[in-house]
Amino acid sequence: TTKKVLMLPGDGIGPEVMRQVQRVMDWMAKKRDVNFEVTEGLIGGASIDAHNNPLTDETLADAMAADAVLLGAVGGPKWDNLPFDIKPERGLLKIRKEMGLFANLRPALVFDALVGASTLKEDVVKGLDIMILRELTGGIYFGQPRGIEERDGVRYGYNTLVYSEPEVERIARVAFDMAMKRDKRLCSVDKANVLESTVLWREVVERVAKDFPEVEVSHMYVDNASMQLVRNPKQFDVMVTTNMFGDILSDCAAMLTGSLGMLPSASLGAADADGKRKALYEPVHGSAPDIAGQDIANPLATILSFAMMLRYSFDMGEDATMIETAVQNVLKGGLRTGDIMQPGMAKVSTTVMGESLISE
Amino acid sequence: TTKKVLMLPGDGIGPEVMRQVQRVMDWMAKKRDVNFEVTEGLIGGASIDAHNNPLTDETLADAMAADAVLLGAVGGPKWDNLPFDIKPERGLLKIRKEMGLFANLRPALVFDALVGASTLKEDVVKGLDIMILRELTGGIYFGQPRGIEERDGVRYGYNTLVYSEPEVERIARVAFDMAMKRDKRLCSVDKANVLESTVLWREVVERVAKDFPEVEVSHMYVDNASMQLVRNPKQFDVMVTTNMFGDILSDCAAMLTGSLGMLPSASLGAADADGKRKALYEPVHGSAPDIAGQDIANPLATILSFAMMLRYSFDMGEDATMIETAVQNVLKGGLRTGDIMQPGMAKVSTTVMGESLISE
Ligand SMILES: CC(C)[C@H](C(=O)O)[C@@H](O)C(=O)O
Ligand SMILES: CC(C)[C@H](C(=O)O)[C@@H](O)C(=O)O
Repeated sequence: TTKKVLMLPGDGIGPEVMRQVQRVMDWMAKKRDVNFEVTEGLIGGASIDAHNNPLTDETLADAMAADAVLLGAVGGPKWDNLPFDIKPERGLLKIRKEMGLFANLRPALVFDALVGASTLKEDVVKGLDIMILRELTGGIYFGQPRGIEERDGVRYGYNTLVYSEPEVERIARVAFDMAMKRDKRLCSVDKANVLESTVLWREVVERVAKDFPEVEVSHMYVDNASMQLVRNPKQFDVMVTTNMFGDILSDCAAMLTGSLGMLPSASLGAADADGKRKALYEPVHGSAPDIAGQDIANPLATILSFAMMLRYSFDMGEDATMIETAVQNVLKGGLRTGDIMQPGMAKVSTTVMGESLISE
Repeated sequence: TTKKVLMLPGDGIGPEVMRQVQRVMDWMAKKRDVNFEVTEGLIGGASIDAHNNPLTDETLADAMAADAVLLGAVGGPKWDNLPFDIKPERGLLKIRKEMGLFANLRPALVFDALVGASTLKEDVVKGLDIMILRELTGGIYFGQPRGIEERDGVRYGYNTLVYSEPEVERIARVAFDMAMKRDKRLCSVDKANVLESTVLWREVVERVAKDFPEVEVSHMYVDNASMQLVRNPKQFDVMVTTNMFGDILSDCAAMLTGSLGMLPSASLGAADADGKRKALYEPVHGSAPDIAGQDIANPLATILSFAMMLRYSFDMGEDATMIETAVQNVLKGGLRTGDIMQPGMAKVSTTVMGESLISE
């Protein structure tokens, strides 16, 4: 069976890192007899330039029809001053919402070869391996009512943080499933001492916990979680939290590793009758407009996002592991793109990094 | 003129660290001819135990009548399972709101003697000196409507994030004033690419900026800010942000220093006709119930909070500096409470730390 993949390179370094994934796919078609049927589309600034719209209905339809979507990155200074409603970000938020991608998996992993890249001391982060589950289609990102309006001559800006029980339950289930496949420890992060929305969150997580008696559950307030990530990140296995808290904490956790250019992510929807989920994969890093087009960006986060695709969308765990091992080996071999460069290593281009990975 | 101070020791280690401040005050009365008229009150769990209410009207009235309030810490496992509405935290939120303490000053400072306590590498945090201004009486902490309710058989939990222009303007002004007294750099943190409430926030900060042409202003999304704090915290001088983002980021920044037991905070209201502000001072650390009553807690954060009181409420900057210098010297002399203990140093009790500070 062919696997339908939609590639959305997006802006900045998106297209050039995506090209390296394309080469990995080509290699797999030849050597592993896996057929990807790849189509390409526009999103973010690239789509604004072409269609005055960060995500067209056509591209969205393609995404809905694909088995999996691979995204590069969106945004850049060129589109920074556009009005709120047509910014590149709108495209990203819309595709997540319309595809129902409520479960955002954000691993924070320290590669042995790169432990020195962290600003944290080696013993604090060596071997770090956290999986953050961020709720991605609800909460304050999408809550209504929202806006800016004048009341009695004073302007107010407002947003609504809202979660329903089913919304919390489905992300909690993904988190517990994930914990079962890992170290069976789950920390749910909320602000239940202040926000009623997260009182409900905690209640639902506790109820779902009853179905997973083997998983050790804890609850932590978000302010404490942001401290604990800095104090002793290795205390965590799986973390689950709201859209907004997940945005903040997963970026903090990513930076603990010191190598943002290495981190993939997956966003998954609900399983259908056949157990298939809509899915979008993307690197954690942004579009890095300052280095775009220079063939110096790190393609590994996007390649590792593709590996996540193999694992979660195509049940090809072995091939995913093969790619992940190849990444480890390329690093061990001393190759580095500029963002992860260290003394004594060989600095290589985006293209050479892609080639070396394939040789591995 | 006598200075009316209300002391609210609160729970856990609150009372014992407060006792050391009392000794500093006694010393100042004798040696520096400063008269404090001290009254004591209950807050948090202690007040729940006595009055079934985390903050009584009487205590609140005392706080309103005082020139400054010094708080220890609130909360503990004993009260963790109380219903949302009568938890110890309610007392803290109520006193902030009723006293109009909209400006929360949270310095993140690395003491030279304690640079090794950080989980971050020495060169990343040595000399770190950030001032975070957190809006404290608005935003999602207090926004209406809020609650948990059933609609069509589904339960929803919801909160409202709301800011008015005047609310943003007054905290922005405090932030710019602070930047003018420091390194003249201000970073405003928002999520203006997603939340309309913070689109307004950014707009108002930009307008206020026009009155402070000497201050270099930048705007950063909260997810990026949480990364940048880990990547390179010394890039920041003053940061200003919303109540919720400030809760998360200031705790992260505090933990970068590695010595939570050393960090003070101030919460200030609007200046009245005489330029006086209502004010509450408290250490950043919590009530640490696990070590309460053992005379091993670090009293320095509370003593430094008292120093902030001298500076901001009583215009006694010199005396504040005297205390701060004494703290530095005690540390240089090798004394440590358990929380900041390092090899080769002398571990001392809460009481001995207080005594040594006074000798200094
Ligand atoms: C670009 C932005 C809208 C987005 C978010 O806030 O979700 C990004 O920060 C992310 O984490 O994917
Ligand atoms: C105890 C809690 C309500 C409080 C807050 O969230 O503001 C605390 O975390 C703080 O930062 O002072």
